[in-house]
Amino acid sequence: MRNIKLVIEYDGTNYHGWQSQVNALAIQDIIAGAIYKLTGERCALVGSCRTDAGVHAIGQVANFKTTSSISAERFPHALNSLMPDDIVVKSSEEVSLDFHSRYSSKGRKYRYIIYNGKYPSAFLLNRAFYVPCKLDFESMRKAALFFRGTHDFSAFRASGSSTKTSIRTITEVTFEQLENDKAVIDGFGMHDAHVFVLEMAGDGFLYNMVRIIAGTLIEVGRGKIPSEAIPAIIKSRDRTKAGRTAPAHGLYLVEVYY
Amino acid sequence: MRNIKLVIEYDGTNYHGWQSQVNALAIQDIIAGAIYKLTGERCALVGSCRTDAGVHAIGQVANFKTTSSISAERFPHALNSLMPDDIVVKSSEEVSLDFHSRYSSKGRKYRYIIYNGKYPSAFLLNRAFYVPCKLDFESMRKAALFFRGTHDFSAFRASGSSTKTSIRTITEVTFEQLENDKAVIDGFGMHDAHVFVLEMAGDGFLYNMVRIIAGTLIEVGRGKIPSEAIPAIIKSRDRTKAGRTAPAHGLYLVEVYY
Repeated sequence: MRNIKLVIEYDGTNYHGWQSQVNALAIQDIIAGAIYKLTGERCALVGSCRTDAGVHAIGQVANFKTTSSISAERFPHALNSLMPDDIVVKSSEEVSLDFHSRYSSKGRKYRYIIYNGKYPSAFLLNRAFYVPCKLDFESMRKAALFFRGTHDFSAFRASGSSTKTSIRTITEVTFEQLENDKAVIDGFGMHDAHVFVLEMAGDGFLYNMVRIIAGTLIEVGRGKIPSEAIPAIIKSRDRTKAGRTAPAHGLYLVEVYY
Repeated sequence: MRNIKLVIEYDGTNYHGWQSQVNALAIQDIIAGAIYKLTGERCALVGSCRTDAGVHAIGQVANFKTTSSISAERFPHALNSLMPDDIVVKSSEEVSLDFHSRYSSKGRKYRYIIYNGKYPSAFLLNRAFYVPCKLDFESMRKAALFFRGTHDFSAFRASGSSTKTSIRTITEVTFEQLENDKAVIDGFGMHDAHVFVLEMAGDGFLYNMVRIIAGTLIEVGRGKIPSEAIPAIIKSRDRTKAGRTAPAHGLYLVEVYY
């Protein structure tokens, strides 16, 4: 028996998220189906975490056990030829049998993309959250940096969700505005538009945490919440003090750490 | 009677190009249909040029005449609300009655995007030409610069097309490799991948000229044509000496000059 680790990129637009569901097309099912076609074995494909419907991944990690003798590095090409083009296996390697994409993971990095302009972008449709009203970049950046460190993130957790602890450590936060020349692919900036990119890395994230933080930063950018109020909102542990949950399609799972 | 000029962005993936056709969905028809819904008038919507099926636009220009009293700056919002989200009017202004998007234009700028990596990108699907084999950036860049200037571009014109003259002046050529940090939106570079961006501005372009030039640069990148051979290929005026026509979905109409 061998254990194969995959790194996967997907555009989540056409799928009902990572996790298998009854009566819905999940990314996990498509990849497991391709593995079955290739190896003839039904496998339990373990993802590092679920992603909701519409959420994208640049570096989702999953693993599965197989008795097949296919060499590890052949899986990307072989699986990609059996899957729709918006799901791409980017690398694969054989790992020790006790490797588990979820339990072995030490942390993750997410990205949230906001498109701020007078009119929406034809190219960032389903790829960034479009906000038409003017956002103040500098105050959003200041606010974002308050999330770094170890905090009880109860105020930034979807209500109703329960985990043992709501304390998480955010090791890295960046909030950047793409320059025009950095956005050459999409031709932003031609109608006074900006792309804001939030990145957060940490040992773990509560359900909807990045999307609620993004929604809160947007309130800051609109002047509804002052950036200096963020520490008090974190301390309050009160979900109603934070902003709305920003939509799924602006969110990207960038990397999983082991 | 007033003359309204529009600047339009579109993802060409879902359409059969700019120009109205029988039994096919053209971008021109969709915009003219939205204008009709808004003004109650059937108009002749004049585009600066055709774009083929799958070709994208960041700054297509079109104009139409109307007796409507809707103020010029209201058109983008009003038309966008009547059109699919992959077609966006980015600006509008009232222009003199003799302005004609095509005949008044002094030149255009195009971009061609190549995605070069071991595996395709889930995010650049339909947005860039995916080339799996290794391409040499530096020789492609050298080759690209030979196209600047005034030349007879017969070797880079779709066979069968006819225009009065095949002499065109290319005023600006750039060929760049996107840095990883410039490609933050799509997370390129995680699997040894590169994005190459060709931009060309000029007083006019023959049919398929940019796509044939892009296809020729790919042959140069693969080592099939040396970069120093480009001047001789231009001089030959022989279509068979140039490379294959690169596919439509890597091409973007960036800007139209007046």
